[in-house]
Amino acid sequence: MNPGFRTDRSYALEMDRQDPLAAFREQFVINDSDLIYLDGNSLGRLPRSVTQRVNSVVSQEWGNDLIRSWNQGWWDAPTRIGEKIATLIGASSGQVIVCDSVSVNLFKLTMAALSLRSGRLKIITDTLNFPSDLYVTQGCVDLLGNRHKIIRIGSLDCDVTPDLKTLYEAIDEETALVSLSHVIFKSGFLYDMAAITQKAHRVGALVIWDLCHSVGALPIELDACQVDFALGCTYKYLNGGPGSPAFIYASQKLTENCRSPIWGWWSQKAPFSFDLDYIPAPGMQRFLTGSQPMLSMFCLEAALEPLLQAGMQPLRKKSLQMSEYFIKLSDTILSPLGYELGSPRNSALRGSHISLRHPEGYRINRVLIDELNVIPDFREPDNIRFGLAPIYNTFTDVWEAVERSRQAVVDKRFERIPQTRLTVT
Amino acid sequence: MNPGFRTDRSYALEMDRQDPLAAFREQFVINDSDLIYLDGNSLGRLPRSVTQRVNSVVSQEWGNDLIRSWNQGWWDAPTRIGEKIATLIGASSGQVIVCDSVSVNLFKLTMAALSLRSGRLKIITDTLNFPSDLYVTQGCVDLLGNRHKIIRIGSLDCDVTPDLKTLYEAIDEETALVSLSHVIFKSGFLYDMAAITQKAHRVGALVIWDLCHSVGALPIELDACQVDFALGCTYKYLNGGPGSPAFIYASQKLTENCRSPIWGWWSQKAPFSFDLDYIPAPGMQRFLTGSQPMLSMFCLEAALEPLLQAGMQPLRKKSLQMSEYFIKLSDTILSPLGYELGSPRNSALRGSHISLRHPEGYRINRVLIDELNVIPDFREPDNIRFGLAPIYNTFTDVWEAVERSRQAVVDKRFERIPQTRLTVT
Repeated sequence: MNPGFRTDRSYALEMDRQDPLAAFREQFVINDSDLIYLDGNSLGRLPRSVTQRVNSVVSQEWGNDLIRSWNQGWWDAPTRIGEKIATLIGASSGQVIVCDSVSVNLFKLTMAALSLRSGRLKIITDTLNFPSDLYVTQGCVDLLGNRHKIIRIGSLDCDVTPDLKTLYEAIDEETALVSLSHVIFKSGFLYDMAAITQKAHRVGALVIWDLCHSVGALPIELDACQVDFALGCTYKYLNGGPGSPAFIYASQKLTENCRSPIWGWWSQKAPFSFDLDYIPAPGMQRFLTGSQPMLSMFCLEAALEPLLQAGMQPLRKKSLQMSEYFIKLSDTILSPLGYELGSPRNSALRGSHISLRHPEGYRINRVLIDELNVIPDFREPDNIRFGLAPIYNTFTDVWEAVERSRQAVVDKRFERIPQTRLTVT
Repeated sequence: MNPGFRTDRSYALEMDRQDPLAAFREQFVINDSDLIYLDGNSLGRLPRSVTQRVNSVVSQEWGNDLIRSWNQGWWDAPTRIGEKIATLIGASSGQVIVCDSVSVNLFKLTMAALSLRSGRLKIITDTLNFPSDLYVTQGCVDLLGNRHKIIRIGSLDCDVTPDLKTLYEAIDEETALVSLSHVIFKSGFLYDMAAITQKAHRVGALVIWDLCHSVGALPIELDACQVDFALGCTYKYLNGGPGSPAFIYASQKLTENCRSPIWGWWSQKAPFSFDLDYIPAPGMQRFLTGSQPMLSMFCLEAALEPLLQAGMQPLRKKSLQMSEYFIKLSDTILSPLGYELGSPRNSALRGSHISLRHPEGYRINRVLIDELNVIPDFREPDNIRFGLAPIYNTFTDVWEAVERSRQAVVDKRFERIPQTRLTVT
């Protein structure tokens, strides 16, 4: 914190004035200036660059140029956009490609990794991993005849930090694969990617890192950490829009020995030769499947612009300033009201969202959304998640979020909300 | 043909004036009225309904409503749009869902089908199937330990019609699965879906029909034909835009016994309970994987409107009138120039595109595109495909396509084009 920390709103305004990234907020569509949107870790805001791009893709490239556009920037979009994401995650050229969803990509990578370590039957993960990553892994094990054993470290699904000691010990010579989320979706705990990858490699195991909750929020060094495989979504901190396609990273050292289990059209060496037998394409193209949704693809490409301009180091610096500020305010203002920090206090161990836990978390989250114009989100059993997207969020957003979270509780506003869960995203 | 057939242009204009579907052309964006676009079997034209919808999805639903939109029409989009497609393919409710690409969906269905017939090891398909359908099938066989045998009926990949006698005979008690394209991508041959499905069922085999080249172009009766599984893309005759998501049909009788090999997030029974163990959702949701590209999804939804209004019977009637007209013109005008019909002459055996074969097919196709403002496409070794999309194509389009194909050859214009193949889509 530059000026001495204070809890009044003018301090937040002062921090915003000193923020070197403040101007990037102008690159996003913000209609309701009173709305405190802290759910960029679920769906990033709309970048202005996207609106222009999508209009030109629809009217010009599809409407006017029609099929000719496939040879003018459509066909190579997964590779081209992959290269842009690569610069955000410390990957040199030829290792990242954009396609499909996280679930489909995790399926491809898990099957590829297990095939590369076919003599080993242990898969190490933890209970804090995103549940559907566990589902996909379970599906792979089922498909391979239930010979593999998934070892899920940890017993509670609401822990703030993982049981690292047990995790490290579990990675042994029988381990084929360590599959983890880089940042835990509930608490925001940030794993030491380098150390875990190193431990896995020391015993001959491979790693898959799910970057959904870290990409675009903090610097990632996949090459430097010698990561084998990684993947992530693009609709959170990358602002690619609802359901924009995910990405895959595979280390150059492994690609040529890998096969995707889905021998799709775009993964064939020469898709337009229409040969009857499959030969995988060289490099990352082998992880493609079929035709990719170009509109969502180009929204993503346009959305990357502000992030590429800002750079990950300055974004991380601001993100931590915001989360430290959030924690200080919360310690002072919210702790006495039954809120408890559900994220690591040590900044080095924290991604870019803050979880607050409260016995009435579900109802408080609903009051915040329905009555107080704050959008966090809720994760069972008691986590209210506040995502801090440094590219467009402000210190005033943080101040307002804490102040309105106070209001949600002081006059027991939440008691008007029924306990029955609605579907929430 | 209503008036007596003539080869002059005014006959085409007369046919257009009598066309009861003529007004639907107004529902599409057509900037260049001289362009003869006959590649709707690769990428359908842009419906006007899409432009409006995509603007409102981006600006309002994403830009303004943000994460809240997931509960206001996003989450249930795969099911809702699936129900609309269902009405075009003769499927009653609860059997069609929109997601992923054709390659990914064929992978899911093939794995599900082979698992339902695990005692049987034969897969029957043919050399006229879309090559990547063969690749996906080869990948499934590889994944299952190469125990299955893929029997590919036919020897040449440029036959106009399949070897039906051999095909029927090959479907026997050892057959797990018959996997075919409903309309062949090169010649446009249309299989007898009912008869082949019946033959497969008589010996206890399952069928998968790939509807890419038939959906939106002709009436399909999946329920009436008792089809087990089907799938198709949505960017050809459904006009969903580049890479718009594909769809899956599974017969209600089979769904509860099926599992998708990809245990993704959206296929879980209760995705927001964040349980650590996978339980498949009931019904078609189990074929979903992860987050779907909403922009491409909603383009598709808007694009279906004109087709739903027009109805498949009138569309088929016009499609056949157009292709019969094309053949008559071609017989008279193009045959003497070395063109040969590469599609079935019998309308009952033909989808909605016409292939013309010519030894100089590649170069003629390039001249048509580069110099004569006609867009067909080319498929090796010698097929020029002219897709007839009855919702927006006209009889004048057909006349112009034939006339300009004549021009491409009479003065040997094609000789200026190099023989070297460019990537074409």
